[in-house]
Amino acid sequence: MTASDLAYVPFVDVEEMMHLILDIGLETCLADLTNYIEEDFRRWPLFDKTPRVAAHSSNGVIELMPTSDGQEYAFKYVNGHPGNMKKGLQTVTAFGLLADVESGYPLLLSEMTLLTALRTAATSALATRLLARPGSRTVAMIGNGAQSEFQALALKKVCGITALRLFDTDPEATRKCMANLAGSGLDITSYKTAEEAVMDADIITTCTADKQMATVLHDNMIGAGVHINAIGGDCPGKTELQADILNRANVFVEYPPQTRIEGEIQQMASDFPVTELWEVLSGTAEGRRDARQITLFDGVGFAIEDFSALRWLRDQVERLGGGKRLDLIADPDDPRDLFGMIERERHRRNPA
Amino acid sequence: MTASDLAYVPFVDVEEMMHLILDIGLETCLADLTNYIEEDFRRWPLFDKTPRVAAHSSNGVIELMPTSDGQEYAFKYVNGHPGNMKKGLQTVTAFGLLADVESGYPLLLSEMTLLTALRTAATSALATRLLARPGSRTVAMIGNGAQSEFQALALKKVCGITALRLFDTDPEATRKCMANLAGSGLDITSYKTAEEAVMDADIITTCTADKQMATVLHDNMIGAGVHINAIGGDCPGKTELQADILNRANVFVEYPPQTRIEGEIQQMASDFPVTELWEVLSGTAEGRRDARQITLFDGVGFAIEDFSALRWLRDQVERLGGGKRLDLIADPDDPRDLFGMIERERHRRNPA
Repeated sequence: MTASDLAYVPFVDVEEMMHLILDIGLETCLADLTNYIEEDFRRWPLFDKTPRVAAHSSNGVIELMPTSDGQEYAFKYVNGHPGNMKKGLQTVTAFGLLADVESGYPLLLSEMTLLTALRTAATSALATRLLARPGSRTVAMIGNGAQSEFQALALKKVCGITALRLFDTDPEATRKCMANLAGSGLDITSYKTAEEAVMDADIITTCTADKQMATVLHDNMIGAGVHINAIGGDCPGKTELQADILNRANVFVEYPPQTRIEGEIQQMASDFPVTELWEVLSGTAEGRRDARQITLFDGVGFAIEDFSALRWLRDQVERLGGGKRLDLIADPDDPRDLFGMIERERHRRNPA
Repeated sequence: MTASDLAYVPFVDVEEMMHLILDIGLETCLADLTNYIEEDFRRWPLFDKTPRVAAHSSNGVIELMPTSDGQEYAFKYVNGHPGNMKKGLQTVTAFGLLADVESGYPLLLSEMTLLTALRTAATSALATRLLARPGSRTVAMIGNGAQSEFQALALKKVCGITALRLFDTDPEATRKCMANLAGSGLDITSYKTAEEAVMDADIITTCTADKQMATVLHDNMIGAGVHINAIGGDCPGKTELQADILNRANVFVEYPPQTRIEGEIQQMASDFPVTELWEVLSGTAEGRRDARQITLFDGVGFAIEDFSALRWLRDQVERLGGGKRLDLIADPDDPRDLFGMIERERHRRNPA
């Protein structure tokens, strides 16, 4: 690449992202992303890892999530503001960047509100493929908001789920989710209580959005052999599961230093035993032992998943073409002459 | 603002930034920026402060620099790769974002390669206005690369500098700087050695770029009463000044936890006494005591300066109009229905 090529940064905006998803097919995107994330989790020790850098306020949080594998660097900007919905705004919005470590130059800037929804669902699917009982076919989804359809379709495509049981404290959210998934081929039922929804489910996924301790699952709701994806508890002070469930389950996490602050296990002692998901993938730790064990993926979202998502997106943009280009990097003819670049623009505008 | 307004993020690209600088006038930009930075330094305790989040590699560093005053949040992405110049690339490139803390929504995305050059010069000017001997008229500039012209013009406009003495190990850099500043009204002389250049100068600014310990100023070059801006030493392992100078001078810094790692004072013990610039501005610490004292601003660049720069830029874009708008934030009609937004796009593309 020449300097002028690098001066223009490929950019995927929201519309472009929607078209890319529609061109490839949402379920294929989710399956491919699951594989990209698995690839990166298998080479986990290579990555620079750090808990996200969070700026908390009374209304929510703004976070930066950087990581690098030594060749490429990625970061995501993401906010979480539960009160936004009432103002007609997204609870979570995000964008991110992939960069070249050798030069520090950006390779791709992208919207990541949609991409985060996809990678979060793909990560749950990866954990479920690894940990759920073989032959699992039914998932109960507690919380039917913006994440729910993506979670359901990822579990269908990646794990062979055929039946979906829905519950939300707001029936309107459940109606929206059912309508959106009407043509998906999933056998969908809605329930009036979380207790009914989780009955006989092989897998339970919780993805509620309140920024508070809200007990979505009680211990007596959880039978033997279930796999749980607890996705909604993802910041300090926000959990979804009663602590008794954590004591009965084997808990799997992304990156313990972050999950102990943000995840369900923030309720537990700092030495509460957890297994890192990447260790199961790489064969250095045990996953599910038997059919009666309760496995719990305490997912909070980690920077490496965003790295994988941006890497996947870059590959799709290269493969399919498209994407816009932003004039984001100043590119003077002589790199030491930033000042002269402005002066040349002056003369271009007003030739003497 | 409505949700749809917020879905489009104002964007200042490199071309737009050049036009804005030319429309306002570079020296006016530098003076205004100096005042914005001073305003924010005066309310320093309000800000969330953290050392930058750095990803180091053998070739350079990629950094994220976030901060917030509780109302607005800003971060900058910036790289530093000294080897880039030989490949025709910028040593430093940057972009950044201003966001609304209450909603987490982005308010402005901007190129910051040019803006960082401006705010770095403005910060030196702020320190010089505060610390240099009254009546200082002559500056010696050691290192005549991409920062040099901005530094010189900021000192001229903000501090009343009239004479500029130049030295660089590469005579080509000095020729470039002289040519660029030919019409500036500054009385400019170039020198074959740093020793000659600093002789009788009231102010010395070092802004060299090597990522290594390089002694640009020796103790015997520094006379009584001089004010020094040491700008180039800005990462671990990179300094410009002999330690003896630090022992003779009163050292002023931006944010000690970052400067002790990155600045000239990385050569000194961890309790080496420094004064924070904001304390002098707010009147809680002493600045220059007398005309014989050596004052040293050990500048490494801090997130609050980027916050000030983005705040200034946002005000200019609002005042002058212009700027582009990026479709960066997914904005479904129902904020819980991200999935439905993709489906509606499908129907829009292929009406049944």
